[in-house]
Amino acid sequence: MSLAAGIDVGGTKCLGVVIDEHGTVVREVRKPTPTADRLVETLASIVRELGDHASIGLGVPGLISRDGIIRSSPNMITAIEFPVREQLSQALRKPVWCDNDATCAALAEWQRGAGVGSRDMWMVTLGTGIGGGLVSGGALQHGAHGHAGEVGHMVVQANGDECPCGQRGCWERYASGAGLSQLAGGIAGEEVIARVRGGDVASGEVLDEYSEWVALGLANIANMSDPDTIVIGGGVMQNADILLPRIQERFATMLYAPNHRVHPVLKAAQLGERAGAIGAALLHLHD
Amino acid sequence: MSLAAGIDVGGTKCLGVVIDEHGTVVREVRKPTPTADRLVETLASIVRELGDHASIGLGVPGLISRDGIIRSSPNMITAIEFPVREQLSQALRKPVWCDNDATCAALAEWQRGAGVGSRDMWMVTLGTGIGGGLVSGGALQHGAHGHAGEVGHMVVQANGDECPCGQRGCWERYASGAGLSQLAGGIAGEEVIARVRGGDVASGEVLDEYSEWVALGLANIANMSDPDTIVIGGGVMQNADILLPRIQERFATMLYAPNHRVHPVLKAAQLGERAGAIGAALLHLHD
Repeated sequence: MSLAAGIDVGGTKCLGVVIDEHGTVVREVRKPTPTADRLVETLASIVRELGDHASIGLGVPGLISRDGIIRSSPNMITAIEFPVREQLSQALRKPVWCDNDATCAALAEWQRGAGVGSRDMWMVTLGTGIGGGLVSGGALQHGAHGHAGEVGHMVVQANGDECPCGQRGCWERYASGAGLSQLAGGIAGEEVIARVRGGDVASGEVLDEYSEWVALGLANIANMSDPDTIVIGGGVMQNADILLPRIQERFATMLYAPNHRVHPVLKAAQLGERAGAIGAALLHLHD
Repeated sequence: MSLAAGIDVGGTKCLGVVIDEHGTVVREVRKPTPTADRLVETLASIVRELGDHASIGLGVPGLISRDGIIRSSPNMITAIEFPVREQLSQALRKPVWCDNDATCAALAEWQRGAGVGSRDMWMVTLGTGIGGGLVSGGALQHGAHGHAGEVGHMVVQANGDECPCGQRGCWERYASGAGLSQLAGGIAGEEVIARVRGGDVASGEVLDEYSEWVALGLANIANMSDPDTIVIGGGVMQNADILLPRIQERFATMLYAPNHRVHPVLKAAQLGERAGAIGAALLHLHD
């Protein structure tokens, strides 16, 4: 039996999994994400606790170069220019695969989740920010320098709201989980959706506006790369039953020449919080 | 000697070329673009006038499905749902390859122009509108339904200027050749640039604003797909000497995390008005 290990390095926790040849998670280890100086030590201990496996992959937030150097990571400021792949590989005396966490999640959903069978797929994760990964022409895309999929910083409102990245009007200002809360005047996204379920009209209007922002970015993605499938994940999509139909309705009218083409299918992600770790474990097959 | 024919079906003219194995144009035929009912007849006569060749490709504006049906074309309203590939193939009793004109232009620049050697490339054409085509992971991308690259209709200003496509704030409203004229209050783009060359300060400010719109869309593209190269073509780029440095300067600051990554190289297109026809002739190698 061929087992593969993957670790998703998150802002607060590192989630390690071992998957079997069907992609099923057979073991799992969680540890708090340490500061950069102790990152390799923590990752190595997770790898050891995960037990037997034939390969190791890492999913890391931010800009990760193809040789596994963390170039810039919003949640690990101290990790800039940190060669995590090489250092972990030396510590373990084994090869390590490494990619952006959202690219890993896209790989997992493509191989084992909502995107199975797709040849041209995007996955977007609506979390605190918006992450993205893509498959084009049947192949996982890394981009020339490993940074493909940074769709959260697509500007959709020139001179719009300030983004911590330094630009204005980035899509994630409006369409992330945090964006929903902002549109609601600071009420948590979960609470907005609870109120919509309770029949609150004003909250329904906020959710409509939010859905329009999500759809606008998805239409941009679809116009640019014409995927057959767009998988949508992240915390807010735990309410896909109420959110996806709203997004779908707007997306269908915002696509270029909507009456003259086959539309991409919008799907809710299936793998939840483990997507990044499962995808990291699959990286060795899709370098 | 293996010769390949390609025809770029434009809004006003059809440009047919025959290229040799080096991509050099050895013969050329031009005819006015007819109405849709006479399109196949005109294309067949161009193919005959082009003389000997081993394959035939077509570049067509608008949404062309993978089986060569014109689904929607801004300049050929009457050609909607027109199976141009099949009909021309039957008329000539030969296989015909077919793709979007901007995708053809991208293929030509990638194989024989400014993008040679790239593995992840975008080409954008700043004309009356904005067309686009892309190469990802070393392969020309068609998208799931043949519509990849419609980057002109990426919304960059939610609730912005009306676009004939029905949306608001599409990139081509601001960053196409026509967009430059609009920013200049109706003065032709050529004239704006002539005035900048003459030292006119107000025209220089208009060109700066235009360059910012172009750079904004290019940064969106780069954030999403991380190309090594972006090739910029279209009429306004005949003034690349004055325009490209302005675009470059802004692009360098608008990219996500600009200080922590390798930037894509921005290049002026090299093949001019023949790019679409040359790319059409190359389609049979990149289906």
